[in-house]
Amino acid sequence: MTKIIINEVGMRDGLQSLQCVMPTSDKKKWIDAAYAAGVRYMEVASFVPAKLLPQMADASEIIAHALTYPDLIVTALAPNLRGAENALASGAHRIVAPISVSSAHSLANVRRTPLEMIEEFGRMCELRSSSGMNQVQLIAGMSVAFGCTRQGHVPLSDLCELTRRVLETGCDAVSLGDTTGYATPGQVGEAIDAVRAIAGDKLQAAHFHDTRGLALVNSLVAVQHGIRELDSSLAGLGGCPFAPGASGNTVTEDLVFMLSSMGFDTGIDLEKLIASRDLLESSLPGEPLYGYIARAGLPKNYRSLAVNA
Amino acid sequence: MTKIIINEVGMRDGLQSLQCVMPTSDKKKWIDAAYAAGVRYMEVASFVPAKLLPQMADASEIIAHALTYPDLIVTALAPNLRGAENALASGAHRIVAPISVSSAHSLANVRRTPLEMIEEFGRMCELRSSSGMNQVQLIAGMSVAFGCTRQGHVPLSDLCELTRRVLETGCDAVSLGDTTGYATPGQVGEAIDAVRAIAGDKLQAAHFHDTRGLALVNSLVAVQHGIRELDSSLAGLGGCPFAPGASGNTVTEDLVFMLSSMGFDTGIDLEKLIASRDLLESSLPGEPLYGYIARAGLPKNYRSLAVNA
Repeated sequence: MTKIIINEVGMRDGLQSLQCVMPTSDKKKWIDAAYAAGVRYMEVASFVPAKLLPQMADASEIIAHALTYPDLIVTALAPNLRGAENALASGAHRIVAPISVSSAHSLANVRRTPLEMIEEFGRMCELRSSSGMNQVQLIAGMSVAFGCTRQGHVPLSDLCELTRRVLETGCDAVSLGDTTGYATPGQVGEAIDAVRAIAGDKLQAAHFHDTRGLALVNSLVAVQHGIRELDSSLAGLGGCPFAPGASGNTVTEDLVFMLSSMGFDTGIDLEKLIASRDLLESSLPGEPLYGYIARAGLPKNYRSLAVNA
Repeated sequence: MTKIIINEVGMRDGLQSLQCVMPTSDKKKWIDAAYAAGVRYMEVASFVPAKLLPQMADASEIIAHALTYPDLIVTALAPNLRGAENALASGAHRIVAPISVSSAHSLANVRRTPLEMIEEFGRMCELRSSSGMNQVQLIAGMSVAFGCTRQGHVPLSDLCELTRRVLETGCDAVSLGDTTGYATPGQVGEAIDAVRAIAGDKLQAAHFHDTRGLALVNSLVAVQHGIRELDSSLAGLGGCPFAPGASGNTVTEDLVFMLSSMGFDTGIDLEKLIASRDLLESSLPGEPLYGYIARAGLPKNYRSLAVNA
């Protein structure tokens, strides 16, 4: 059975999009529940000023909790050198930095052009080396890779050129991010093939939002094109402030259902995962929880339906 | 550009699932709006006793209206010989009869076992010939083909055996129907390949429900496996009474968005199609309308994003 890594990003991408702040103790319980369901990759926090994102103020404490599970791979987001410094100090195994392919988005998000952000990424790589922490993976999160709510079209040639440059900085891995929910299945396949030609095995992951109902389709196409790590969020938590009426990330439960029904091994117990939504319901009253499989229930033939893709 | 036929089934599968009855004049307006948006295949009615399905009592009048468009291919559903007689009299171009692959579902739905239903299908074929109406296509809608809310697992071997038998009756075309929203992408690909080995080019269409959020994924996999006609419903109209919390058919707008973004030609103007949801909103107050693209809006780069699959 082919293994697919599910990287749960709800504690980071999900929570940072909400108005409310999840209490630290509930975040820890969420990590516990996800771990108990078999999730072994989690992006649990981002290192940004608490003034800007109070939702992430407890990043170090959350990462310390996640690190109590010896076989859990813990990722933190860092948008700049200062963030990377804190992320390295926290003990996170992987640091992802957002490299927006759209200039308009990059300036709005990190107040740097894409090329300036790549320079910053280079400084993060140097810091990592000079700190003697080469075991920490530095991931270039190529965000807004498929289209931008500000800029509109994002040329594939821009994605390729920026990927080429970020690889020169010492980047360990590349992830393709559909930050805005613009990606379509044809684009996803085309972009993966083009970026793989540049990045080879360093192209590791993909990240989709369900704004236009295509998160599962795009995830499947990514897998069909050789991607073996996918980001997703429990209950699809997280909205996109730039896409009114849109829902958030790929729904982890639905993704696990789809992949396991196709004979892929995610290592995740779907019933336990679905049960862990209760925690979100009680901790985030009134927040919309997305996802089909939790509402419709597992089909009667669930245990027997795995068919190889 | 590869053409994909979108067969709008909302007027039949959508409306017959609702408690309320859409007025005949509104159904006609819906057909007009769908036609204006470029839809050229519609399943507009079913011939069942009005006592059982008052929603379909105006079937003949609706078909007569649809037939005023000379290049519109009009399909009617008929669950038995009597229904087929009426459908033939109505002038519909295609008649689809449901052959449930699950005995439990078949008995509940048409009070016949699958084999008895195939015998009935044979009688429909004879009636068509004896009426000198061989230009009318008779389609075997292999329903509950991927799993059953009553029976659970539906073996692929049952689907294949029933398809083999229905082809012997003089059936013109076969459609694979996921009546219950059980289908998973691996299953869909496997079933299409297996049925094509039996039915060849007579395997024409696929029909999915979005109960578990996989309608688009399954539609894409069907296309990847050579299917060129897909059923769907405007706003995903129609629920499944056996799957609480589930939504209805594949959402036509989302399907058209996905396919056209991949460079497939559906012939449908997406903006006009989305605008036609207004009609459902005013005619069916309080009914949930599904779909992502109508809520999120077309991406800024819509006109330029087509990428071949």
